[in-house]
Amino acid sequence: MNELEPGYLEAIKNSFRSLAFVADVGIEFVDCGPGWCETRLVLQPKHLQYTGAAHAGVQATLADHTAGVAAVTLLKPPRLVLTVDFKLSLLRAASGESLRCRAEVLKSGKQFTFTESEVFAESGGQWSLVSKAASTLTYVLPQEASSTANVPRTS
Amino acid sequence: MNELEPGYLEAIKNSFRSLAFVADVGIEFVDCGPGWCETRLVLQPKHLQYTGAAHAGVQATLADHTAGVAAVTLLKPPRLVLTVDFKLSLLRAASGESLRCRAEVLKSGKQFTFTESEVFAESGGQWSLVSKAASTLTYVLPQEASSTANVPRTS
Amino acid sequence: MNELEPGYLEAIKNSFRSLAFVADVGIEFVDCGPGWCETRLVLQPKHLQYTGAAHAGVQATLADHTAGVAAVTLLKPPRLVLTVDFKLSLLRAASGESLRCRAEVLKSGKQFTFTESEVFAESGGQWSLVSKAASTLTYVLPQEASSTANVPRTS
Amino acid sequence: MNELEPGYLEAIKNSFRSLAFVADVGIEFVDCGPGWCETRLVLQPKHLQYTGAAHAGVQATLADHTAGVAAVTLLKPPRLVLTVDFKLSLLRAASGESLRCRAEVLKSGKQFTFTESEVFAESGGQWSLVSKAASTLTYVLPQEASSTANVPRTS
Repeated sequence: MNELEPGYLEAIKNSFRSLAFVADVGIEFVDCGPGWCETRLVLQPKHLQYTGAAHAGVQATLADHTAGVAAVTLLKPPRLVLTVDFKLSLLRAASGESLRCRAEVLKSGKQFTFTESEVFAESGGQWSLVSKAASTLTYVLPQEASSTANVPRTS
Repeated sequence: MNELEPGYLEAIKNSFRSLAFVADVGIEFVDCGPGWCETRLVLQPKHLQYTGAAHAGVQATLADHTAGVAAVTLLKPPRLVLTVDFKLSLLRAASGESLRCRAEVLKSGKQFTFTESEVFAESGGQWSLVSKAASTLTYVLPQEASSTANVPRTS
Repeated sequence: MNELEPGYLEAIKNSFRSLAFVADVGIEFVDCGPGWCETRLVLQPKHLQYTGAAHAGVQATLADHTAGVAAVTLLKPPRLVLTVDFKLSLLRAASGESLRCRAEVLKSGKQFTFTESEVFAESGGQWSLVSKAASTLTYVLPQEASSTANVPRTS
Repeated sequence: MNELEPGYLEAIKNSFRSLAFVADVGIEFVDCGPGWCETRLVLQPKHLQYTGAAHAGVQATLADHTAGVAAVTLLKPPRLVLTVDFKLSLLRAASGESLRCRAEVLKSGKQFTFTESEVFAESGGQWSLVSKAASTLTYVLPQEASSTANVPRTS
């Protein structure tokens, strides 16, 4: 696949509004292509810890969803993407005005996809890498989906 | 420490309401003691994926916060607990009316604490283990806190 | 499956001698049943770090192999078990005369198996938990085996 | 630190021969600089699985040791480096004549260092990424070293 088909790209974009938790947290679509996705999150008081930094759960949600969409870009419908597991490393305090995440597929196979998600925080125009996730995802048929699918269905 | 001091227990309970993201997601305190903590989350539409199961980000938030509080129960103030990293394994679809999480400290040291969090989903009176986290946390002094502290300060 | 068939148990036992790296490191079979396996390793100078404790690589090999065999006990031949990923947490110095590992299947599905491996060190008759692995494994058909199979073939 | 001091580089090189398990497995030093290290391993029958690929334990040992040395390059003696935890993702079969590993420090702090290790396999002149580790390491004083130090002491 060279580029994503317009209809598929549109479905991915729309999914950010229709997916309940992603929309509730406030994660926005930035861009994507075959094997990668970028998202962002404007930080609001509801995302923060005592210390003023984004909660690890916010970062995990951002990293996991962006990883899922990166995997979706390489998907052969009607299969769905499910997260199997991920490790999130919290490198620095996620303080600032907004977060940005870029996920890339490290290896895509028939059964598994391995992705990496980098989360950056912007503070006063400076970006720094604040956390990184290493995820294992899988492709399943809709009837096998054990209901943790983290990606849009286009059909 | 045998049991938690009443004032400390109260501070932990209150933190569930004052901690923005934890309160926003809807995580509730159930109980805790030295080295463990239990929490719950009544599932609402905003927590769900396409498939009707709780988003991995919801489970990560629940698992991480409960792990943090389990570590807090063994804390010597004024130190704070920070999550360093965690691996979340998604075993089954997190479908049902509510989630429950129990975190236990596996090993607590001067510098690190290792915890495990088990997330259970309740559906029609049946509970099943849906995800499990293995976390590494650290204790820091407030001035070293790089603002990702996931636990209450009692002073 | 209630208990393992004698021929299958024998094949698993023999695999500890025929599997090159496992035999070279010196990992020995102790016992296994449906969903679990126990192994041990008498510590020799070649296993040690500067500090006299077993190298993380030794513990990783022990934890991974024992997890693989625990998954094998639930296997429907001719499928093979492959490790997809694991997180190893190093809780304490692995010092002593020998290590012992017990792996248990946390959840076994058609496509994935999640296991946990606990590594204990024995020193002067005292056992302590020194490391723990959370592993994701998968079942594949021999023709799909991308050559990282970590378990015996009985046929 | 711009470049490593010759004496320090020499100590690192020598450690590959004096560190028992690393030498026993056959891991060789290739090169290192501030924040990175490269190593290699000529594959021998003793490293292999049934399928002819390197055992996950071999890859874990290679990835962990190379990560440790990458962290050592940024070390302020007399501190030591200890591995706290790592996740190893097995992307492809590690088949071929040799493995090569490059580890880089993602973030180095006073208390923690986060590294990534990429393991490549060479087969018929072609290199492919076969596994990747995300590690958390810590710096400790020798008297705090709970005997899992994975790096050379130069004094």
